[in-house]
Amino acid sequence: MPGNSFGHMFRYTTWGESHGPAIGCVIDGVPPRIALAESDIQIWLDKRKPGQSRFTTQRKEPDSVRIVSGVFEGQTTGTPLALAIENQDVRSKDYSAIKDKFRPGHADMTYWAKYGIRDYRGGGRSSARETAMRVAAGAVARKILDHVLGPSVSIRGALVQMGPHAIDRAKWDWDAVEGNPFWCPDAKAAKAWEKFLDGVRKAGSSTGAVIEVVASGVPAGLGEPVYDKLDADLAKAMMSINAVKSVEIGAGLEAASLSGEENADEMRMKDGKIAFLSNKAGGILGGLSTGQDIVVRFAVKPTSSILSPRKTVDLHGQETEIVTKGRHDPCVGIRAVPVGEAMMAIVLADHLLRHRAQCGL
Amino acid sequence: MPGNSFGHMFRYTTWGESHGPAIGCVIDGVPPRIALAESDIQIWLDKRKPGQSRFTTQRKEPDSVRIVSGVFEGQTTGTPLALAIENQDVRSKDYSAIKDKFRPGHADMTYWAKYGIRDYRGGGRSSARETAMRVAAGAVARKILDHVLGPSVSIRGALVQMGPHAIDRAKWDWDAVEGNPFWCPDAKAAKAWEKFLDGVRKAGSSTGAVIEVVASGVPAGLGEPVYDKLDADLAKAMMSINAVKSVEIGAGLEAASLSGEENADEMRMKDGKIAFLSNKAGGILGGLSTGQDIVVRFAVKPTSSILSPRKTVDLHGQETEIVTKGRHDPCVGIRAVPVGEAMMAIVLADHLLRHRAQCGL
Amino acid sequence: MPGNSFGHMFRYTTWGESHGPAIGCVIDGVPPRIALAESDIQIWLDKRKPGQSRFTTQRKEPDSVRIVSGVFEGQTTGTPLALAIENQDVRSKDYSAIKDKFRPGHADMTYWAKYGIRDYRGGGRSSARETAMRVAAGAVARKILDHVLGPSVSIRGALVQMGPHAIDRAKWDWDAVEGNPFWCPDAKAAKAWEKFLDGVRKAGSSTGAVIEVVASGVPAGLGEPVYDKLDADLAKAMMSINAVKSVEIGAGLEAASLSGEENADEMRMKDGKIAFLSNKAGGILGGLSTGQDIVVRFAVKPTSSILSPRKTVDLHGQETEIVTKGRHDPCVGIRAVPVGEAMMAIVLADHLLRHRAQCGL
Amino acid sequence: MPGNSFGHMFRYTTWGESHGPAIGCVIDGVPPRIALAESDIQIWLDKRKPGQSRFTTQRKEPDSVRIVSGVFEGQTTGTPLALAIENQDVRSKDYSAIKDKFRPGHADMTYWAKYGIRDYRGGGRSSARETAMRVAAGAVARKILDHVLGPSVSIRGALVQMGPHAIDRAKWDWDAVEGNPFWCPDAKAAKAWEKFLDGVRKAGSSTGAVIEVVASGVPAGLGEPVYDKLDADLAKAMMSINAVKSVEIGAGLEAASLSGEENADEMRMKDGKIAFLSNKAGGILGGLSTGQDIVVRFAVKPTSSILSPRKTVDLHGQETEIVTKGRHDPCVGIRAVPVGEAMMAIVLADHLLRHRAQCGL
Repeated sequence: MPGNSFGHMFRYTTWGESHGPAIGCVIDGVPPRIALAESDIQIWLDKRKPGQSRFTTQRKEPDSVRIVSGVFEGQTTGTPLALAIENQDVRSKDYSAIKDKFRPGHADMTYWAKYGIRDYRGGGRSSARETAMRVAAGAVARKILDHVLGPSVSIRGALVQMGPHAIDRAKWDWDAVEGNPFWCPDAKAAKAWEKFLDGVRKAGSSTGAVIEVVASGVPAGLGEPVYDKLDADLAKAMMSINAVKSVEIGAGLEAASLSGEENADEMRMKDGKIAFLSNKAGGILGGLSTGQDIVVRFAVKPTSSILSPRKTVDLHGQETEIVTKGRHDPCVGIRAVPVGEAMMAIVLADHLLRHRAQCGL
Repeated sequence: MPGNSFGHMFRYTTWGESHGPAIGCVIDGVPPRIALAESDIQIWLDKRKPGQSRFTTQRKEPDSVRIVSGVFEGQTTGTPLALAIENQDVRSKDYSAIKDKFRPGHADMTYWAKYGIRDYRGGGRSSARETAMRVAAGAVARKILDHVLGPSVSIRGALVQMGPHAIDRAKWDWDAVEGNPFWCPDAKAAKAWEKFLDGVRKAGSSTGAVIEVVASGVPAGLGEPVYDKLDADLAKAMMSINAVKSVEIGAGLEAASLSGEENADEMRMKDGKIAFLSNKAGGILGGLSTGQDIVVRFAVKPTSSILSPRKTVDLHGQETEIVTKGRHDPCVGIRAVPVGEAMMAIVLADHLLRHRAQCGL
Repeated sequence: MPGNSFGHMFRYTTWGESHGPAIGCVIDGVPPRIALAESDIQIWLDKRKPGQSRFTTQRKEPDSVRIVSGVFEGQTTGTPLALAIENQDVRSKDYSAIKDKFRPGHADMTYWAKYGIRDYRGGGRSSARETAMRVAAGAVARKILDHVLGPSVSIRGALVQMGPHAIDRAKWDWDAVEGNPFWCPDAKAAKAWEKFLDGVRKAGSSTGAVIEVVASGVPAGLGEPVYDKLDADLAKAMMSINAVKSVEIGAGLEAASLSGEENADEMRMKDGKIAFLSNKAGGILGGLSTGQDIVVRFAVKPTSSILSPRKTVDLHGQETEIVTKGRHDPCVGIRAVPVGEAMMAIVLADHLLRHRAQCGL
Repeated sequence: MPGNSFGHMFRYTTWGESHGPAIGCVIDGVPPRIALAESDIQIWLDKRKPGQSRFTTQRKEPDSVRIVSGVFEGQTTGTPLALAIENQDVRSKDYSAIKDKFRPGHADMTYWAKYGIRDYRGGGRSSARETAMRVAAGAVARKILDHVLGPSVSIRGALVQMGPHAIDRAKWDWDAVEGNPFWCPDAKAAKAWEKFLDGVRKAGSSTGAVIEVVASGVPAGLGEPVYDKLDADLAKAMMSINAVKSVEIGAGLEAASLSGEENADEMRMKDGKIAFLSNKAGGILGGLSTGQDIVVRFAVKPTSSILSPRKTVDLHGQETEIVTKGRHDPCVGIRAVPVGEAMMAIVLADHLLRHRAQCGL
């Protein structure tokens, strides 16, 4: 299989380049008779949309999504959903400065090595612009979770570290997340980050970040041993997002330092259901959901587009230097929050349908 | 698709339970006319085999692999390779103590939730015994890399942290890895770990670990944007290994703390080829290999089977306690080293064949 | 997997309904650096386009295809190709006469049974309008065959039977095919068919047909035993075309009546290559191409939309009668010729890339 | 994907060669808690087993199947089912007469062209021996149909034509099928065939046949438009069986000769359910089941192994002659009956689970 699709029973395929006429996706496998309007998707796209604060790229894109097929009289029909967004702010700028050079940290060099051709305008297909369609597909995935399970599942994300500055988890407040431009769950930390990121931005530099996504209300038993484990698919989903360099489940990397006694999530009964006394597992055991919160964390590297000149080479094998101007995010991790939420929804919807195939529901 | 297969063009499927008569796998897509004997696979299985030191489970399994189909007169035929290993040391012990109880940190509870039935003997299908077939498939994948690319690719793994004790990377010595029972690249650290792990073992406790796997000599351009990126598939492959809780590529989690300047791997020319001045990317940009070393790290949680009694419930919804006796690894991360190497080989072989399909070679 | 995709390494997915705003497809896995313009696709679409004679539907669709992504500066980039055609002649007619009734021979009843919802306008997704995107994908597949193999492969189709009137195969003339509105390889037979079909059309009736598609110049060895045999995939591809009820390879159904002596295609050497003395096999043995012409034949049922009233039921379970007016093909088999050619090209391109993955080229 | 697997949610993979130590398969996606014993599979294997009359190959194979994994305490566990059959009657005969020659009508030449290596012993992987595992997988598929739908579905097959001798469909008697060695639904015709086939056998010749498989009790709505239509997947499944050259659904090839009036299956209501007045469609409309009998027919070519010398070439490019001695079926179509039934069961089980994934049940 080629690589532009994700999922098995909820399966979507994206297409489009950063500076082409449009981007879009086809979603196949959507259950029929789910009420679906463009506004159901737009609300999530608006969350990811660029240019909403001085801390994200100033490219102006309304990101207005259009449902082109698969919905009839306000309901999904079970046939493929086609979604499209027209690119609006495609500047006809002169790319001659970078068209032959490989920007360090970008996919320029590797796309050239693989394909021997490269759409250099704004990164072409390798641009994070593709993630808009992930958010759109994620909106549909949320609808499926609701449709099949009732409104039990909530999926929320937050930025838990900006550059070297991690939040104090004791101060975690979900209500704070919507109140700052960073999706930070600690209003006070957000203030400090604002100052930090202004410095980064003015220096023409960039910084990394860590995002945490939590899904609550997921029933126990989702996941497909032994290769399509729920955590394995989440790891793939998150790592496939532009600039992600690590993925952790639950205690994650810290689990390496723990003893078996510290790491075991003990169980009691509560109201006739199993209640875990801790959640080191991040809601997943043996690759299957436990019914606890599913907790995924991923690190995003600093944007590679910076104003300091860097040593590089061009496609003719000549050594040169490069400065990457243009409209870029000083902390691309911020806009990765809604993308991570979307990938969580997509993985869960796909596994829900796969589980239903084999085990019923 | 159900979940017991991995890969697209190099595609293998495993079967078998910990205490069933045998375990095995079918590998489809192997190129024809590759010289292959059982001994080519056995050498890697021997590396993972239990019972080789006091630090791994004392279950005695020769893990003798048998090639049942797909090889004719010493060469692969292009038809499916079937491999099997008979289980030998399947103790007819009394499982009554745990057959109805959910061991904390194990898949007992989630398999029950998913399937409503569970082979409780030794963990059944959820046992790490399945990883023997990953190692076998990895041996075949290595052969494919050699066959298509010549002997350019080397894949090596090491334990870089045991419990809270990380190695000093400045002292990394690949030659040390084979000289201690932990695959530790620092002989001196290995000595200290020996003492630490003896303490853990005697206390009936367990500890986590971090493994690093490095592939050298991989050509640039492998990987399939934008969902089957090389790093995305590596993340899935490693996270699918039993007990793994995090996966990092290159700088990994640390990348979050870096500035764009620190994180960019600059490029120069050397002997007519691109030479990077650093490898924060871990050999992957935009989901494609750069030609540098591919560096993957993953954390393994402490074995859940410990002698301290833990609170749990049984499948009748009764609260109870459990002590997990039996033959277990105090640090299951040790035997995860050859498994991680195998998964690296499998992902690379699969992507090599996929790349050849679309782009030729 | 949901069902709106076809192929493994050349993989395309179609979307869109007969009376929606547009139809389209995404093609993933296209090799990079193939020269591709919209005109390369349009020439094949024009062959299938409705309204070109009085013998096909009078719906007026220019079927102008647009390449929305995947091509840069006139060449494929290796990223997904997105193609779209806007629907133009979507009459805002009153569907109330048939919106609740199940037309016999149509998918009305089965889509309702499956999905509980149905886009009744022009058949929605079940309309043969979807086959326009097959033709578009087939045009790209032809480009791939050329790109990888050089211009060795030719794919041609013909109508070999209209209603009960089969051609005399001794009079087969490929040059005649373009000279009549039926793609008939016998100009004289075409004249007789014209009279026959005019009668059918005026009676408001319809008739079936048989199409034969021949691929010449295909190298030996394409196909993937034992389930994705070349003939198995061709059978699936052709049977997936609207209204097809049989698929034959080479001697096909007639092979049942033959003796082993009659059926065996003997071999001699000619110019250093194997030359078969006959082609009962239709160019496929053991599911792999032999290097001979690949010959596939498929039967198309008469269009179900006819003017005679037929007994049926509605979605409320009431018995009723129905007359299907509207713009329909009296012999839908005619326009199935370019569709069959396209599916042949798609299956061959897919198998060519799969073969290259495993065996090189 | 390589080609040795079939199905999406009920997915099985076969391995093994005609003269290797064993053949087997892995079935993934089987719902849990289905009672399953080896005897449930053996009854179907016994139907296909060779050597049961003088009209099939005299190779003696008990074909005793063994369940190696996936069943615990008599029930499926939801994990992969591994099945194996040891090859017993593998004659250590001298293959030197044919090892370098390409038998006309066999896969010898094409396997050589594809892989450059070939297990010539009994046809290796291209042997019809592989179909034993199809029958085994089909037995499991039947269990799934029962488990999910209750005992509503029956799948039966019959030989409806031997060589040029077709049955009179008016005399069709399902009860006759088990009473003769040909699975002929007309006892009198079977008598005539016996004489005919004795003549063929004694002449060292062979003959083709036509098989019909009928599934009753299948609910409406199974199938996945527009590429994985139920008929498309049935066509693929049947065409993938060794020696099959045509597949028809319902009226099949005859539909080409019909008028729209003759071909339309009209509908009435009966006992609150839709009742069709005819079944030209063979139980499938728009690629989805209608609830009527699903009727598939396929033609099998005469066995290529005959005693008359045929012209051929060898792998050194030399012209030569060949006589294929050995233990062969004079009418391989006979043993294709249980194989066709199995493929029907497999396609239905797969589509049932896929339907359940998207639409529930």
